[in-house]
Amino acid sequence: MSNDAISVPPLDAEAMRRARERQDRLTKPARSLGRLEDLSVALAGMTGRLDVPLAHRVVFTLAADHGVAAEGVSAYPKEVTPQMVLNFLNGGAAINVLARRFNARVVVADLGVDAELAPHPQLRALKVRRGTASITRGPAMSVVEALVAIEHGRSLVREETERGLDVVLTGDMGIGNTTASAALICALCRLDPVEVVGRGTGVDDAGLERKRNAVNAALEVNAERIAQGPAEALAAVGGLEIAGLAGVIIEAATRRRPVVVDGFISGAAALVAEAMAPGASAYMVASHRSHELGHGAALDHLGLKPLLDLELRLGEGTGAVLALPLLDAAMAILNEMATFDSAGVSQREP
Amino acid sequence: MSNDAISVPPLDAEAMRRARERQDRLTKPARSLGRLEDLSVALAGMTGRLDVPLAHRVVFTLAADHGVAAEGVSAYPKEVTPQMVLNFLNGGAAINVLARRFNARVVVADLGVDAELAPHPQLRALKVRRGTASITRGPAMSVVEALVAIEHGRSLVREETERGLDVVLTGDMGIGNTTASAALICALCRLDPVEVVGRGTGVDDAGLERKRNAVNAALEVNAERIAQGPAEALAAVGGLEIAGLAGVIIEAATRRRPVVVDGFISGAAALVAEAMAPGASAYMVASHRSHELGHGAALDHLGLKPLLDLELRLGEGTGAVLALPLLDAAMAILNEMATFDSAGVSQREP
Repeated sequence: MSNDAISVPPLDAEAMRRARERQDRLTKPARSLGRLEDLSVALAGMTGRLDVPLAHRVVFTLAADHGVAAEGVSAYPKEVTPQMVLNFLNGGAAINVLARRFNARVVVADLGVDAELAPHPQLRALKVRRGTASITRGPAMSVVEALVAIEHGRSLVREETERGLDVVLTGDMGIGNTTASAALICALCRLDPVEVVGRGTGVDDAGLERKRNAVNAALEVNAERIAQGPAEALAAVGGLEIAGLAGVIIEAATRRRPVVVDGFISGAAALVAEAMAPGASAYMVASHRSHELGHGAALDHLGLKPLLDLELRLGEGTGAVLALPLLDAAMAILNEMATFDSAGVSQREP
Repeated sequence: MSNDAISVPPLDAEAMRRARERQDRLTKPARSLGRLEDLSVALAGMTGRLDVPLAHRVVFTLAADHGVAAEGVSAYPKEVTPQMVLNFLNGGAAINVLARRFNARVVVADLGVDAELAPHPQLRALKVRRGTASITRGPAMSVVEALVAIEHGRSLVREETERGLDVVLTGDMGIGNTTASAALICALCRLDPVEVVGRGTGVDDAGLERKRNAVNAALEVNAERIAQGPAEALAAVGGLEIAGLAGVIIEAATRRRPVVVDGFISGAAALVAEAMAPGASAYMVASHRSHELGHGAALDHLGLKPLLDLELRLGEGTGAVLALPLLDAAMAILNEMATFDSAGVSQREP
């Protein structure tokens, strides 16, 4: 039951045709703005209009803890997860700084932090459980818990839609979550951990070896669960914030909102979203290529080509927010430039 | 005489050290913002301060014509150069749209358009001559003309400094100028035209063959001039807007202003600037990797790594302006984020 496909509307082919046709009449050599032109066409297809609204942009930064963090897979102690949630709420983290700069709202949600967080007007308290169990010894959580976390992610998008929501951006916080994401990417793309497991926030060689071993163990002990479908794989080796982000992406796609996908952890969530809601990837904009090892493979699996490659490996939604000016630029070009006719500029020689 | 080196101040190593030290205290894993961190350190080195000012940003879009355009090397007739200058002045071109979006001023200058342009309050009339001679039969211009064009570029920067100028951006317009730029890149980097000559604004296979032949002929007929030095090479196979842009870059570097270099044509000008003012490349930020063939070689020669790779091939300064949000982001991160101490976030485990 959990793996019934969720329906996603197709892109608007007519809007895409009109956007492409308009791009070709603007006062520039055809296709000379490269991927910006493609981006404007894609956004037109997602939203069904050429004047794609971009004013209300919300980054969903979802936090949770991971049982596997106890196994020495991160350079940071797990206390950093709740500490960073407070930092988000106080506006001092990188995602806050970038969101302010690029006019995005940050929605911070606790999907499963392993600490009691004091109530805060800016914190969405959606804790499913206090952290996952270690994926090296069994499932991270039950399938029901994973589905509840997905539903929480969907509900966040529904709530924000009422406040105004044009562009959805994904972000994450959770010590240990590159390990869970690596396991999930291996599971869903059928890759070997050596191709996917990277240094995360900066483990040394011994830590990297522990991460690889943890992912290998997780894939082995959870092999039967993984084979049952994406929700089961998510429950087996994923995480609560990853599940929430899958829900965010699914809800965005069903509502025809462009969703700017951040890096490695969001990439794992995007794989889950596409597996559960085929066609969701058509609404995804890959913001950047993470410095984390297996991210490229996840993007390839989704057919996405990242806009930026800045060797980022922070998460929080920082890479997604950095791509916003390119969305703005793409739509400004489409809607504000003069055409050859209106400007009296000669077209190509025949 | 023309090749006496112009003196460029060194970067401020102490400001760079302080910027790096501050980056490492911010609430994020060390180096997790990758190239944005490097960019903040570089900007601190250029300006000698951590609160690098970025408010006054001016794109210098310089226009000129090229005698070689008569030899079928472009997909567009040369009338497009003055037509596009009018489009710039009317605010309808891609550079205008992007500059408005990212709060940059556009300075449009005629360095050598082969047409009488009516006076316009926004047009800087600095025509050295009506277009260059064809580089396939001799020098594009005299060395004196090239030096005058460089001086015009320098004077534009000086003028804008009085109005407020924190960041310099380069841009170009000139039918035929990818051919001249390719010849100049071949001359200054000692490359073969097959490695450098690309399709520009979109010539077909026959046009590409004509471009390659033109560059080969230009390098042959001007070989002695090219060997004399960068100013002579510029005069021999370059162009008036390229010379002006070299001046813009040189003046920016001598004044310790960051200069965001656009694509292929600006890359050729940057090579001239570095050759005439060694060390100028330390003040350059490569905005993007152009879709034009030889751009990567020019960037490599300058030791620059582009921030964006969006398959752009328009010029005008569009790629440079698109990089501005990344400069903004880099400096916002450095100056607005919380530190581990101030936010009470645990550092790495020992």
